Amino acid sequence: MIQRKVARLARNAKSLLNSGKWRPLTTSAGIEYQNEPPGPIVVTEIPGPQSRKLQSDLDAIQNASMVQFFCDYDVSRGNYLADVDGNVMLDLFTQISSLPLGYNHPAMTSVLKDPSNWSTFVNRPALGYFPPANWVNRLQSALVSVAPPGMKHVQTMACGSCSVEHGLKALFLKYARDRREGRLYTQEEIDSCMWNQPPGSPKLTVLSFHNGLHGRTMACLGLTHSKWQMKIDMPAPDWPIARFPALRYPLEDYVSENTAEEHSCLAEVEERIDAWNRKEMPVAAVVVEPIQAEGGDNHATAAFFQVLRDITKKRNIGLLIDEVQTGCGPTGLFWAHEHFRLSDTPDVVTFSKKMLTGGFYCKKSFKPIESNRIFNTWVGDPSKVLLLEAVVKVIREQGLVERTRVTGEYLLTGLRQMQDKYPGILTKARGLGTFCAIDFHNTESRDSLVFKLRQRGVHTGTCGSVTLRLRPSLIFQTRHVDLFLEHFQTVLETMPTK
Amino acid sequence: MIQRKVARLARNAKSLLNSGKWRPLTTSAGIEYQNEPPGPIVVTEIPGPQSRKLQSDLDAIQNASMVQFFCDYDVSRGNYLADVDGNVMLDLFTQISSLPLGYNHPAMTSVLKDPSNWSTFVNRPALGYFPPANWVNRLQSALVSVAPPGMKHVQTMACGSCSVEHGLKALFLKYARDRREGRLYTQEEIDSCMWNQPPGSPKLTVLSFHNGLHGRTMACLGLTHSKWQMKIDMPAPDWPIARFPALRYPLEDYVSENTAEEHSCLAEVEERIDAWNRKEMPVAAVVVEPIQAEGGDNHATAAFFQVLRDITKKRNIGLLIDEVQTGCGPTGLFWAHEHFRLSDTPDVVTFSKKMLTGGFYCKKSFKPIESNRIFNTWVGDPSKVLLLEAVVKVIREQGLVERTRVTGEYLLTGLRQMQDKYPGILTKARGLGTFCAIDFHNTESRDSLVFKLRQRGVHTGTCGSVTLRLRPSLIFQTRHVDLFLEHFQTVLETMPTK
Repeated sequence: MIQRKVARLARNAKSLLNSGKWRPLTTSAGIEYQNEPPGPIVVTEIPGPQSRKLQSDLDAIQNASMVQFFCDYDVSRGNYLADVDGNVMLDLFTQISSLPLGYNHPAMTSVLKDPSNWSTFVNRPALGYFPPANWVNRLQSALVSVAPPGMKHVQTMACGSCSVEHGLKALFLKYARDRREGRLYTQEEIDSCMWNQPPGSPKLTVLSFHNGLHGRTMACLGLTHSKWQMKIDMPAPDWPIARFPALRYPLEDYVSENTAEEHSCLAEVEERIDAWNRKEMPVAAVVVEPIQAEGGDNHATAAFFQVLRDITKKRNIGLLIDEVQTGCGPTGLFWAHEHFRLSDTPDVVTFSKKMLTGGFYCKKSFKPIESNRIFNTWVGDPSKVLLLEAVVKVIREQGLVERTRVTGEYLLTGLRQMQDKYPGILTKARGLGTFCAIDFHNTESRDSLVFKLRQRGVHTGTCGSVTLRLRPSLIFQTRHVDLFLEHFQTVLETMPTK
Repeated sequence: MIQRKVARLARNAKSLLNSGKWRPLTTSAGIEYQNEPPGPIVVTEIPGPQSRKLQSDLDAIQNASMVQFFCDYDVSRGNYLADVDGNVMLDLFTQISSLPLGYNHPAMTSVLKDPSNWSTFVNRPALGYFPPANWVNRLQSALVSVAPPGMKHVQTMACGSCSVEHGLKALFLKYARDRREGRLYTQEEIDSCMWNQPPGSPKLTVLSFHNGLHGRTMACLGLTHSKWQMKIDMPAPDWPIARFPALRYPLEDYVSENTAEEHSCLAEVEERIDAWNRKEMPVAAVVVEPIQAEGGDNHATAAFFQVLRDITKKRNIGLLIDEVQTGCGPTGLFWAHEHFRLSDTPDVVTFSKKMLTGGFYCKKSFKPIESNRIFNTWVGDPSKVLLLEAVVKVIREQGLVERTRVTGEYLLTGLRQMQDKYPGILTKARGLGTFCAIDFHNTESRDSLVFKLRQRGVHTGTCGSVTLRLRPSLIFQTRHVDLFLEHFQTVLETMPTK
């Protein structure tokens, strides 16, 4: 009886989504939202019975223990994610921050509708050898047109990890070239590198920060220090790791403490660089996220990044800013590091996620000079760049980065009000644009809130050990903020204070 | 005047391709070839002026020195690749061996034509958290259905490098779990791994073979020893490397020498494992290609691989067979290692290229037990698995793997005839299926032949220092072999013997 009722509700939710009954809403800014529902629809617990069944089936093929629920992407739209049990959730996590325009955005679907685009999807080239006719134009319009200031060179890659791995290689190459001072490779270098031995394979290292995450291939995992489950049992390079600032909030109350904290971390950076140089494992590069995401949405001030740029520049060490999660507008500028007003641009900036394609930008001096240094079979995927081109056009035409600033301010104000109202539960509301987070006093209450929110059809993420991570898409609007805050408060009301 | 003539010829070639004037050919086996031209069409030198102009434009954005020519993928079809200057080449290289069904195969285009598939292309999920409703079914039909014997577990990844990197992690996990003998992680392990230090980050190593290629991210590059340009200046792990057998040809004349060579390499494997174990850098895994491709199409016998399997099994070391280039049928079996009739299946088999998605298969005992060990944001791409599903259907329905055996035998016979006819130029004709190669007595004559073939509209690849590498798609037929051999012989006729 109950089961049948649930099934009927689920069918109703799906048919409502499919019917297009929700008309596109035209806001004052003229933006349409693809027949979004007026709010979440919840017909089962989440994950529901269909999701749990599928998870068990999937686990027979691979470890499926991380699966949260199975989705119906056909009927998901805009800011709303549908699951296989007929629930429709307001999505503030967007596939770990990887959807620029929400679900089934018409500009992206239009790319698929156009038969002249199909060959790009069925003929994936070895891009480094045999690029398509329109490749230069497409790189220009999708990637060069949104390049960080001062960076006109770009290399595509398939995913975030490969972007960081190959971005590091660009830094190693430049460092080794400078150190070689114009002399040719020696035969000893050529021979020894084939056996992984110095001097051909030099003992170069990369400094990263505690709590950072840069991917999970070997070099990336060597830079990742957010959760031990990712790292234990895996061999890792002996590379230096410095503390990332742990700022106290509210910032305005702790200016001198936070300045001291950042100085201390920067001193540690210099001390570690010296220590590894003394070990004859010279530090060739520093890698940092503009906001440590997976590690707990840890922010540092612009001053911290300015000094970090100055330290690396002074020592002729490369600086890679990893914008895999922060890039493509969510912080209110296209690239988060633009907030820092650095004295000189970073040397390499990596991207992926919302950019749909992985890759890295670099300064001209970091563009590899020789052949066959940064290469693999696919080096990216033109079909992703084709979709990105459509996304960038929408972002530009609809001013979505600027709108994210407005929506983000509204969201952060709301979070601060909640924090003021529930000081026994919440602390450290923070964010740039809609890239927002708030902490709980303990993991249990954070996890309990996320669970309860989800049962109400509001889907959020977590990071660090006590942080609620909000990563809506760029079409998230103030009316979605209102919906989120309404459910957030309702759940907070039910929770015990510490 | 000449320029105008060239432009007219190029337009003619394109309009012929676009017009569909070449009707599908129905062979005795009932297979259609999508309006292929009757042979190559050459209207300019290759690369032509359009390609050269585009290459110079691209070089302003990234190092474009590896580009061979720019392609017109819209009009390419079947075994024929069109370039931007109006040339149409018979393609025996197929994007570094990564096209299963040639260009614009109707079964793949049909996937794009179907509106019910579009949402899979525009809503790329974080697969490990939020898989699509049909994900289990699709994994079954596209990947589990073609799994190597004895391997029912599969994990998708975005590219070949990530497949190998994460395949290694599955091996490290199993090795560490066995070594731990059931005890829990110690706090020291948990703490130390966050700083990249043992015991949490153990000094585990992986044995690979000289001349192998497994990708170009850090761990993959540490296993790669084919060309120094890929490796020099990059830090590399101190992992053991053994020689791969250098067989003498014709095989039947050198049976005892080749057996001795393989024994010597296997002895080196054991000796290196012992040496690294003594250094307290235990070898957790051995990684090998079934045929070393980039390194020069180096084959070893089934007996070599059988003993390698036995050595690794006896020592409780994982065996990863890297089928990124050999997988998906080109050798005449779906997986090349099936030719070896191993006493036990490999522990991990990696794939990418023709499989359209990267990933790895593993035995049940190598499936990670715990959560969050093999993971990243995308862990692959459902749109690639959707296309693979269509490809696997065609392969099965048209018996393409079996046909590759027939075509391959025909091709190898032709290569041997050429070798007999031009012993002063050619040597070591070899292959499995259409995965064929032949050596030249020096690099110059090999490169000269490839250049001249290309000017005749026949596109081939190279590997090692003196090897012609043939990697046609699975729809390459005996009539294409005839065309290739005809042009091959014509060029050979013009070449000096040593």
